[in-house]
Amino acid sequence: MTARIDASRSIVIENVEPELNCGRYAVKREVGDTLEVSADIYKEGHDAIAAAIRYRAEDETEWREEPMRFVENDRWAGRCVLDRNIRYHYTVVAWTDLFGSWAADLRKKFDAAQDVSGELLEGAKIVRGAVSRAQGEDRARLELLLHEMTTDDAQAARVTVAMDPVLLQLVSRHPDRSDLTEYDHLLPVQVDRVRARYASWYELFPRSMADDATRHGTFDDVIRKLPYVRDMGFDVLYFPPIHPIGRSHRKGKNNSLTPGPDEPGVPYAIGSEEGGHKDVHPELGTIEDFRRLVGAARDQGLEIALDFAIQVSPDHPYVKQHPNWFYIRPDGTIKYAENPPKKYQDIYPLNFYGEGWEEQWEEWRDVILFWVEQGVKTFRVDNPHTKPVQFWEWMIREVQRQHPEVLFLSEAFTRPKMMRALAKAGFSQSYTYFTWRNFKGELQEYFTELTQGPMREYFRGNLFPNTPDINPEFLQQGGRPAFMIRAVLATTLSSVYGIYSGFELCEATPLAPGKEEYLNSEKYEIKAWDWDRPGNIRPLITRLNQLRRENPALQEYDNLRFHLCDSDQVLFYEKVSPDGANVIFVAVNLDPYQAHEVTLFFPLMRVGVGEHEPWEAEELLVGGRNLWQGSHQRIRLEPHAPARIWRTRHWVSSERQFDQFMEPTVVGR
Amino acid sequence: MTARIDASRSIVIENVEPELNCGRYAVKREVGDTLEVSADIYKEGHDAIAAAIRYRAEDETEWREEPMRFVENDRWAGRCVLDRNIRYHYTVVAWTDLFGSWAADLRKKFDAAQDVSGELLEGAKIVRGAVSRAQGEDRARLELLLHEMTTDDAQAARVTVAMDPVLLQLVSRHPDRSDLTEYDHLLPVQVDRVRARYASWYELFPRSMADDATRHGTFDDVIRKLPYVRDMGFDVLYFPPIHPIGRSHRKGKNNSLTPGPDEPGVPYAIGSEEGGHKDVHPELGTIEDFRRLVGAARDQGLEIALDFAIQVSPDHPYVKQHPNWFYIRPDGTIKYAENPPKKYQDIYPLNFYGEGWEEQWEEWRDVILFWVEQGVKTFRVDNPHTKPVQFWEWMIREVQRQHPEVLFLSEAFTRPKMMRALAKAGFSQSYTYFTWRNFKGELQEYFTELTQGPMREYFRGNLFPNTPDINPEFLQQGGRPAFMIRAVLATTLSSVYGIYSGFELCEATPLAPGKEEYLNSEKYEIKAWDWDRPGNIRPLITRLNQLRRENPALQEYDNLRFHLCDSDQVLFYEKVSPDGANVIFVAVNLDPYQAHEVTLFFPLMRVGVGEHEPWEAEELLVGGRNLWQGSHQRIRLEPHAPARIWRTRHWVSSERQFDQFMEPTVVGR
Repeated sequence: MTARIDASRSIVIENVEPELNCGRYAVKREVGDTLEVSADIYKEGHDAIAAAIRYRAEDETEWREEPMRFVENDRWAGRCVLDRNIRYHYTVVAWTDLFGSWAADLRKKFDAAQDVSGELLEGAKIVRGAVSRAQGEDRARLELLLHEMTTDDAQAARVTVAMDPVLLQLVSRHPDRSDLTEYDHLLPVQVDRVRARYASWYELFPRSMADDATRHGTFDDVIRKLPYVRDMGFDVLYFPPIHPIGRSHRKGKNNSLTPGPDEPGVPYAIGSEEGGHKDVHPELGTIEDFRRLVGAARDQGLEIALDFAIQVSPDHPYVKQHPNWFYIRPDGTIKYAENPPKKYQDIYPLNFYGEGWEEQWEEWRDVILFWVEQGVKTFRVDNPHTKPVQFWEWMIREVQRQHPEVLFLSEAFTRPKMMRALAKAGFSQSYTYFTWRNFKGELQEYFTELTQGPMREYFRGNLFPNTPDINPEFLQQGGRPAFMIRAVLATTLSSVYGIYSGFELCEATPLAPGKEEYLNSEKYEIKAWDWDRPGNIRPLITRLNQLRRENPALQEYDNLRFHLCDSDQVLFYEKVSPDGANVIFVAVNLDPYQAHEVTLFFPLMRVGVGEHEPWEAEELLVGGRNLWQGSHQRIRLEPHAPARIWRTRHWVSSERQFDQFMEPTVVGR
Repeated sequence: MTARIDASRSIVIENVEPELNCGRYAVKREVGDTLEVSADIYKEGHDAIAAAIRYRAEDETEWREEPMRFVENDRWAGRCVLDRNIRYHYTVVAWTDLFGSWAADLRKKFDAAQDVSGELLEGAKIVRGAVSRAQGEDRARLELLLHEMTTDDAQAARVTVAMDPVLLQLVSRHPDRSDLTEYDHLLPVQVDRVRARYASWYELFPRSMADDATRHGTFDDVIRKLPYVRDMGFDVLYFPPIHPIGRSHRKGKNNSLTPGPDEPGVPYAIGSEEGGHKDVHPELGTIEDFRRLVGAARDQGLEIALDFAIQVSPDHPYVKQHPNWFYIRPDGTIKYAENPPKKYQDIYPLNFYGEGWEEQWEEWRDVILFWVEQGVKTFRVDNPHTKPVQFWEWMIREVQRQHPEVLFLSEAFTRPKMMRALAKAGFSQSYTYFTWRNFKGELQEYFTELTQGPMREYFRGNLFPNTPDINPEFLQQGGRPAFMIRAVLATTLSSVYGIYSGFELCEATPLAPGKEEYLNSEKYEIKAWDWDRPGNIRPLITRLNQLRRENPALQEYDNLRFHLCDSDQVLFYEKVSPDGANVIFVAVNLDPYQAHEVTLFFPLMRVGVGEHEPWEAEELLVGGRNLWQGSHQRIRLEPHAPARIWRTRHWVSSERQFDQFMEPTVVGR
């Protein structure tokens, strides 16, 4: 007989959710989350079934179990709490509920006035089995009930004992699980710290922090700038590469190929004779200065995130030390980066498949571990889609096995399946197409996909309205109202978002008309920003970050739901906290030029009132309270105040009224 | 470094279709089918990729390959022909198309007037690799091209050789596949004979074939009845159990518990002192008679299908020989079947989990193999959902490994997921809810699920409008028009269907009003049918089976598409043969009482004409031809002729006209 057949393991368990690629990849959750697991579970015939989730953290040896309950149509569900920052594994087990099956049949026969003496003997045998597995008080109680079930002369009395729910509960606590069947796959869930889901990022170039374009900023300048960032309410402060910058083929202002001798170069051309990926650019300070900055940021509630760009300048120490890590031309020279016919002679890409790949892969992992040692726990990864997916899967796992608190943000602006693949492979967060989604249909479609489809299990979209590489047309054209619109969308559509400095100042001057790049980009030069520039939207950003802190609904990712509104220019949506207590509605005028007056259709079930009850909506951006009744509400959104954010609550008096409505007074009662 | 990482296997291959439960279960196809396989395939960066399906029959050692082509959005697809009645396995492989990637870059650089001497050296290296892998003529041609590509002095001339599509083709035939990546799973496809998909079943009780209720019919009587079945156009002739019938607690007429001494008993109470599942009921004849019947049927183009019911009468030899195969009560007796509080004392169910289960499972397999030896290749399995799914998975595989031509029909009228599980586990065909689906919405929904959703890959619905157990209310109430409606639906909605004898005679007398059972069911007694009973619909059944033979469109399962019609009482659908040449439209009035006049919306794309071209529809049931124009056609369906079946074609002249329309004449041309 075929080896894999085991007659005693024949319960069908399938379609387990969540599950990614047959368990190859982990779904993602955050510390403290409840993981809901569901599955189709059934077997032949009419026996009752019991089922449970089995789960354990990867450093534990014992399985924990939580019971599953029958939902409908052979579907079962259960939940377990994930309370540690570590990878867990879970699966589903099921077994025949012998006593439950027996008790159900007994009742039918007894109700039909059949003799059940044989059945009572069978039941006693099952209870005897439970006695043998039980200990202490349970055992004593089981023995007592077994005694009553087998010794009383009257059959009716014995049946009464047998049908006692207490007995069923006791036997269920010590079940015969000799036919316990386990689902085919062990499924991983990566439990990250909450920052993976809920965080507000701010990106700046440290070298611009002297507020003087003639002087190279330092880590100490950044320390002086921390209150500016903290006061706006950000959590994560992210720097482009801080490593020594190459000199060969150095680019100048606005990507010029002929820079002057004093131009600072592009931070992404990493490596010079002063060092590589484990070193800091000397003009920024020393590694000790950097550690001091990490500590100062931490003291202000800010976490430092570093860029991780796997590419080197021709001057990087690796080039001499490990020429076999690169692509070699037939003439023996190392290949620079290309996007034919464009050439990037200041950058050497790495060959992940060449000789010595294992040594190379381990070196990149060690670069991350080096910065983890310096106190950095979050890395934004540059262009991960140009490196093997399998490398990331290996590297991130290697790091997180030792340091589960480390997070990785994927900067993959590429084809949708590759973006998803990188998230499945392990990236904690991902850049998104949000940067180019401005209109109602495309926003609803994209965010429904991100937050309500299968992607919600593993892809956390970190919304950036701008980046040093992307100065979107919408911001260039729409002016200050456009920045306000994008700020509200970024902060409320996702629980994790970020801006690149200058956004709060409404900076949007393009390199040239029709270009999506910044003029005088600080990728190529040192800038001095006027942080109090007229027209800046710092107060709005500050208020939005404050609202995110105060409202748990805005700290969740997959709770976004769109609602009806009678205009294609106004986006209307809701976020509700897991416990249902914090209910937020957002309406945004997506048109930076025109006011729109619209009717919003509030789902009153979320508010917790009936169509005729009053309810209160506190407006959190412009301020004020509304006392509303009914689901249709008419509002007007001007470009200079393009959004409203409401926190709703129902009145206690209306609740009483509602209760009365549900239970009409009975006359004479 | 973790063992499973192999840097050279890093192409992402996922979301392969078709695939069931990560490859645990086989999808189904039939001999001669083309299997279309698709997958998401991509890698980092910009390299070109090549991909192929790998497949082989399970008795082959060498993989065969068919190329896949890029479709869109990282999706690839390919197809392979499955030409044998056996299980195949398939998977997907992909590798970097080094020469293709190189050639694409070369063109861009050359077009930008860059020097490409280094690139030509690199390309030559790739071609040299292909030379080393090629043989014979290919090698000679490659060597020649390599020579031209490396020795001509003018770079332009060498580039021309390098870009020659012939060279690309030659190199692609001998690719460097050192980074060949294979999909994680090997996927099975069970290739059945065509009868698994396309067959018309007829069910009869052999003991009623004497046409004399006072005499027990024999296999020879069945032989005399073969022309009746053949002339109606059936392919499969199916009998309820033909084994010795138990005497203990024998049931009488209309399921009476107090039968007379001469009542024949229920064929499902299998086993007596005259034998068990490997024996024939003596009153039917001998095993030699049965073999003669199988041969005679084959000579008339009919295949015999037997019932396989795993249950025994208390008199079955197994009861004495293998008491450990049954459930034992505390008092030592064997448990009879129950559905509390109902008792079935004439039937003992088997315990599939007890001691000796391996011996028992093997015995059931051997029962099947015994009948296969007698020439039976198709089995209708009684109540498979009361036996372990895993048993069926094992047993069917054991049988089909030796006899891939053997087919199993699952008689599971149970919850939807269990019905699907049995089909996945290996059943070739399945009974369906068709028996109770009579109205437009429910028919469209159910048949869309069966033929267009994931079930189409593994679940072949065999449509029975009636069975010995089910005398549906629709037939009881609707009279002859109801039988005509159900006959048309059964024969045209699925490629596989069956009727239980009496259906063609419009037999529908219920046991009692509101009961879904037949009065005087031949499950309990011997019947004599008047095969020429007035009002019978034999001519319709005969015509429908003939149309099924003549029209390949009706022999396919997953080609059903519903179309618009302006009435809830008329179902309108299409079936088209795989080559598109045979186009069938069916309109059925689902109301057995009233005529309905409706507008049908024909999809002219299927017909192959434009809105203003004439097209011809030949009506195949009532006869006649229509010359139509446009998609909207008005028809009237009376209860006495409730359906129309059209075969459409466009006129050659209209095709010419259409061509002219597409290419307007140019003046002066």
